[in-house]
Amino acid sequence: MSGIAVEFLKNGIIKIGKFKLTSGIESPFYIDLRRLYSFPSLREKVVEEIVKRFPTDQADVIVGIATSGIALASFIGCKTGKPIAYVRLDRKEHGTQALLEGEVRNKKAVVVDDVATTGGSLEHAISAVKEMGGNVMFSVVVVDREQGAREKLKSIGVELYSLFTAKELFKELYESNTIDEKTYKEIQEYLSKY
Amino acid sequence: MSGIAVEFLKNGIIKIGKFKLTSGIESPFYIDLRRLYSFPSLREKVVEEIVKRFPTDQADVIVGIATSGIALASFIGCKTGKPIAYVRLDRKEHGTQALLEGEVRNKKAVVVDDVATTGGSLEHAISAVKEMGGNVMFSVVVVDREQGAREKLKSIGVELYSLFTAKELFKELYESNTIDEKTYKEIQEYLSKY
Repeated sequence: MSGIAVEFLKNGIIKIGKFKLTSGIESPFYIDLRRLYSFPSLREKVVEEIVKRFPTDQADVIVGIATSGIALASFIGCKTGKPIAYVRLDRKEHGTQALLEGEVRNKKAVVVDDVATTGGSLEHAISAVKEMGGNVMFSVVVVDREQGAREKLKSIGVELYSLFTAKELFKELYESNTIDEKTYKEIQEYLSKY
Repeated sequence: MSGIAVEFLKNGIIKIGKFKLTSGIESPFYIDLRRLYSFPSLREKVVEEIVKRFPTDQADVIVGIATSGIALASFIGCKTGKPIAYVRLDRKEHGTQALLEGEVRNKKAVVVDDVATTGGSLEHAISAVKEMGGNVMFSVVVVDREQGAREKLKSIGVELYSLFTAKELFKELYESNTIDEKTYKEIQEYLSKY
């Protein structure tokens, strides 16, 4: 898709190698979308694709999840002229507290974040919007790692859209000859495990 | 200044009344700029004023402080086409840890936040940028409550600009007949104490 995956790799947003995750698992790649906002033309391309592919124009408010999702929501809000709000997740000993900043009452909200993994943060943010009287239309992430987020959101009645699944990202990198077959196979194998 | 203070009051970004601060002090007003991003034309006016009055065009990167400053940096970055980065402040038992996301090495940075009070967050964020090899040109906030931030930043060699001091905000509200003389006097008295 218009070379976004290749630019992610070039700018260190995707890294290929051996990365120890906080869970202890070793991953053959690393995705850090917090770097995206350092690259104006790339972030513009990402925001344009999101606005073009998903019906954000029907939303009253774009809600981002702290911290990276606040930047993403702001750039989408700036592009579309829409209000934005954001959710801070305070992870305490006894569960997660979601604090919503901005206006969502009686509004149609789109909840955005950079990456979806198991969908825990998205679920908390969606609940916070609903508790404040907002109506969540759908959710959008740049990359869905496909580790359960889509299913978790479906179970609470919210569709999750993604610009890329992790599989699609690496497929684009392989098909553009940016990564070799051995690396691609290794990553596909890793992804199919989770 | 183009009616921004009046719009702040109208949209609940400034509230007049009796507010118990976390410090225990009772304040005759409350400022919540996290609401700013819910009002597209007002946030656009604020960003336009910042870009017009302060030399953000000379910066390589706009650095926001979590959480509200991330949105502000993003809207400034969107307006100017500049890269953004951001600082998360993790307040732990033994001091504050500042984590910088994005690229600042060998770059001219402007550090932005919504409100300055004593300047602690700004100081931590500026240190984080310097530690990562960035050069802080100056700092900008929407509202300076004038409780020591300007002096603190001057002592580390960084100029603090503000769109408004708290005094200027309430002066505009008084001179536009939005608040009465009694309220204005009470607020001025409160502000001169801190």
